[in-house]
Amino acid sequence: MKVPVVRNILEVNDRIANEHRELFQENNVLVLNLMSSPGAGKTTLLENTIGHLKESLRIGVIEGDIQTSADAERILHAGAAAVQINTDGACHLDGNMIKAALGSINTEGTDLLFIENVGNLVCPAEFDLGEDYKVMILSVTEGDDKPEKYPLMFHEASVLLINKIDLLPYVNCNMDKIRQTVLKINPKIKIFEISCQTKEGLDNWFGWIMEHIKNKT
Amino acid sequence: MKVPVVRNILEVNDRIANEHRELFQENNVLVLNLMSSPGAGKTTLLENTIGHLKESLRIGVIEGDIQTSADAERILHAGAAAVQINTDGACHLDGNMIKAALGSINTEGTDLLFIENVGNLVCPAEFDLGEDYKVMILSVTEGDDKPEKYPLMFHEASVLLINKIDLLPYVNCNMDKIRQTVLKINPKIKIFEISCQTKEGLDNWFGWIMEHIKNKT
Repeated sequence: MKVPVVRNILEVNDRIANEHRELFQENNVLVLNLMSSPGAGKTTLLENTIGHLKESLRIGVIEGDIQTSADAERILHAGAAAVQINTDGACHLDGNMIKAALGSINTEGTDLLFIENVGNLVCPAEFDLGEDYKVMILSVTEGDDKPEKYPLMFHEASVLLINKIDLLPYVNCNMDKIRQTVLKINPKIKIFEISCQTKEGLDNWFGWIMEHIKNKT
Repeated sequence: MKVPVVRNILEVNDRIANEHRELFQENNVLVLNLMSSPGAGKTTLLENTIGHLKESLRIGVIEGDIQTSADAERILHAGAAAVQINTDGACHLDGNMIKAALGSINTEGTDLLFIENVGNLVCPAEFDLGEDYKVMILSVTEGDDKPEKYPLMFHEASVLLINKIDLLPYVNCNMDKIRQTVLKINPKIKIFEISCQTKEGLDNWFGWIMEHIKNKT
């Protein structure tokens, strides 16, 4: 009985995601669903991105965490609107959680909406949240074998940010191997190498966002 | 209908776990369920542990991965018996998967059995696998906010290995904060600080294992 139940949950989720996608389209909001393992640097990337783009864009963030509101507080401090979702044990965000959060988001007054998913390299990749693009972060400290071991998220993502490249001298991580494996899984993925510590490579990521902003005037 | 289904799955899992626990007890096998985020260092820890203890103990490893048999090959190379489980998308191991793997494990001829769970800081903590102890690894590169954000696994674990301490000079991670938060969640947890690169602290971990081996002669 497990498979039909799971399928049903995913079908309901897809219907809700499509409703949200229409809402985002109508209001010209670029929506990015940000996914990674715990501690790969999602919130720090958002702090940097908000700091750089908040004069040009109206930015909102839906923060998904199992517990605490610490990340939403960091986002508010960085200068964007933030709504915290606590999943209360659940390991990913789904459409119903986004629906609840959207009551507190002014989509008309938002150009760029990030959804920061729960830190988990597996389950979040299965749930469409109505986003335009899935963006994932891999930290070089996680090792170069992660794409072949966790292929779904690399397959679903449109952008891969390889983060913490400032730590490359101290860890055993082959960047060529990552690139080759990822491009075999997903030939169209866009890969950026970044460090939120040294700021290396972040301009390319900011440039990608600005290219994809819909409401260009 | 979601909650009863989930409860039913966990009840079935607990029944299978208890059967396995009896089997392990009868055969004097110490069973450790090893859990962490992707890339925190589970397989590297096992390579080091097998290398150090294989002359004293008969060691087996059940390797849980979504795909690939790369980790089981590393374990075989390190000198232990290994069985690979591919979960085919599932984000954690459960009792039925362990049952399938146990057909290939000689429990009578094993003193120490590791179950290396899927890399995931959330879901594996919910599933009893019949182990004696849950052991978790946190890498310092994941940051000091993980215990409060992912409390269940820290609550369930008997041992926490804080790994990659050789990277402490290069990352923003407060070890005191980790210890304080973890001990608030789980006052009885045993914490070891280790580096599989420099081997610092590993002797304390090996000592813990030897203290808990059942079949002392």
